[in-house]
Parts: sequence; structure tokens; C-alpha cells
Amino acid sequence: MISQTAEYALRAIVWLAGHPETSLGTPHIAAATHVPAGYMSKVLQALARSGLVVSQPGRRGGFQLTRPPSKISVLEVINSVDPIQRIHKCPLDLKSHGAKLCPLHRRLDEAMASVEDAFAGSTIEELISDPTRPTPLCESGVGLGQSLSGRAIGPQITRPGKGPGIRGNQE
Amino acid sequence: MISQTAEYALRAIVWLAGHPETSLGTPHIAAATHVPAGYMSKVLQALARSGLVVSQPGRRGGFQLTRPPSKISVLEVINSVDPIQRIHKCPLDLKSHGAKLCPLHRRLDEAMASVEDAFAGSTIEELISDPTRPTPLCESGVGLGQSLSGRAIGPQITRPGKGPGIRGNQE
Repeated sequence: MISQTAEYALRAIVWLAGHPETSLGTPHIAAATHVPAGYMSKVLQALARSGLVVSQPGRRGGFQLTRPPSKISVLEVINSVDPIQRIHKCPLDLKSHGAKLCPLHRRLDEAMASVEDAFAGSTIEELISDPTRPTPLCESGVGLGQSLSGRAIGPQITRPGKGPGIRGNQE
Repeated sequence: MISQTAEYALRAIVWLAGHPETSLGTPHIAAATHVPAGYMSKVLQALARSGLVVSQPGRRGGFQLTRPPSKISVLEVINSVDPIQRIHKCPLDLKSHGAKLCPLHRRLDEAMASVEDAFAGSTIEELISDPTRPTPLCESGVGLGQSLSGRAIGPQITRPGKGPGIRGNQE
């Protein structure tokens, strides 16, 4: 449905949204979101290029959101790293079809459009403020990015993983 | 959204649905659907394993649908080759989440569920019987699987393409 890269980008943005007061680097964010550090580094670079996050240099530097979570849609995050591919013209390049899609490709594009609409109408704020559900990325009872012991999660729990590649496959 | 393999499977099923009287082999179907022959061969094998098509052996053999197009949903075709991946448990393996998804993964799963519902409610018949739209896989004014000259499309128009791999990337 959405690519692994898009899912990882959402994890990063959700984690940063839960930590407005901090500015931590790639290793910390990668560990907290259970993403290989090399992969997360590329995801954060893409998010920075799109203007959703900024990177502060220096020893105490790190990443921060550029807007409040209520002003960032799920769709923006996905489209920043691996946009949902709409069908704008015949994938078979049939000249007589052009932009007037046949029922097969119209049906597929309608599904993509409905997903786009749903994600455009969901904000990051909604994902971190539902008291009836587990907190994203965290074991219950602890805040975003904290371990069960209450200590901030460090890079030591980074999982080994396959190499990155900014466009991932579907999960 | 859906994988290339799923899209190719839909093209094959739509083409076969438009040719209930014929029984043609992989090279013909690959050419008519603009899919590399090796890739189409794997897709047809997967569709046969799922019971959506049968292969008749022999010189005049080939593939046919096992059910009328009105009894085959778009979802069945997709799920025969590359199922839509729902999220049934926490992708981060957080124990306290388990099957109770956090708002992030619930939102993603809801989108997948809505796509599943839409595809489950669409039949192959609907895709080949809309007179207001171009005929799938064909230039306007000719039947499914025929060229503009009115002759059946032969394998000679098979496009060169990359190797198969039954699970494709998103298109």
C-alpha cells in the first residue's frame, strides 16, 4: 500500500512530533523508531529537503519539525519521500486512451485517489493524541521514545537491517 | 498502491474476459497486454494456482477463465498474485501493542481496508462493459486484443522488458 520508506518517514515524524522540546540526531531517532540507522539517515535527509524537518548542526544539534503536528498531514509525509502514484495517462501508452483512462485503470486510480484523500485529511497530531490506543512507537505506559525503564532510548537498540535505498518496497 | 505483478494479473484477466470463445497461450496474452512474456508466464501460473484460470494443453491449448467475469472481483485477482498487506499486529513488535494497533498503524490499515473493500466490490465484468470509456488494453474502435488493422495481435509486438520476479514493485 505505502512503501517501507513512507512508513519509516511517518515513524520519524510521529516521533519528532512527540518530542517538540528536544533536538536529537539520526542514531537516536533510528533507535526509537526501530529503523536501521543508515536507512533513517536517508529518510531524514528527504524530509529535510521537503521542508518538513530542519537539522540543527553541532554537538547538541539534531532534527526538529518545522510546523506543529496539527499542520502536517499524513499525505505530506508520504509524498515527501515516496509519493502515492496516481494514474494520469494510459500505462500501456495507447494513443486513443491518453488521459481518458479505461475502466481498469480508472478503477485503480480511484482507489489511489481515495487513499490520498484519507491521508490528506489525517494530521500527525491525530496520530499522537488518541488516549484510547497505544502510543505510537512505544511500549504502553511510557512516553514516546522512552524505554520501559523510563530512560531515553539510545542507539544501542538499533536493529541490524538491510541496506537502505530511499525507495523501499511495499511492506 | 498495487504492485506491478497485480496490475499485470488484472490485465491478463481482463483480456481473457474479453475473449471467452478463445483459448490462447502466454505469448499472445503477453503481447495483447503489453507485458514481457517471461513475466506474464509467471503471472498466469500464479493465476492458475489460485484457480482463476485453467490451462488447456496441446497445440490449440491456452488459458481460459474458470468463472464468468461477473463472478470474479478485482480483489480476488490482486490477492491471487500479490495480496494487499493488511496490518494485523504492531510492525515494531511492541509487546504492549500486539493486535491493538496504535493510531499510526491503525490509520494505515484503515486505508488498506478501504481499498480492499473497493476492489472486493468491483467485478471484472464492470471493467469490460463501460461503453463511455476506452476498451481496456485496446486502441479505440477495435476489440480486446485486436490491433488497429483488425488482426489479432501476435507475439511480435511483445515489448522487451526486464526479467520477471513474481512480486513486483509499486508502479
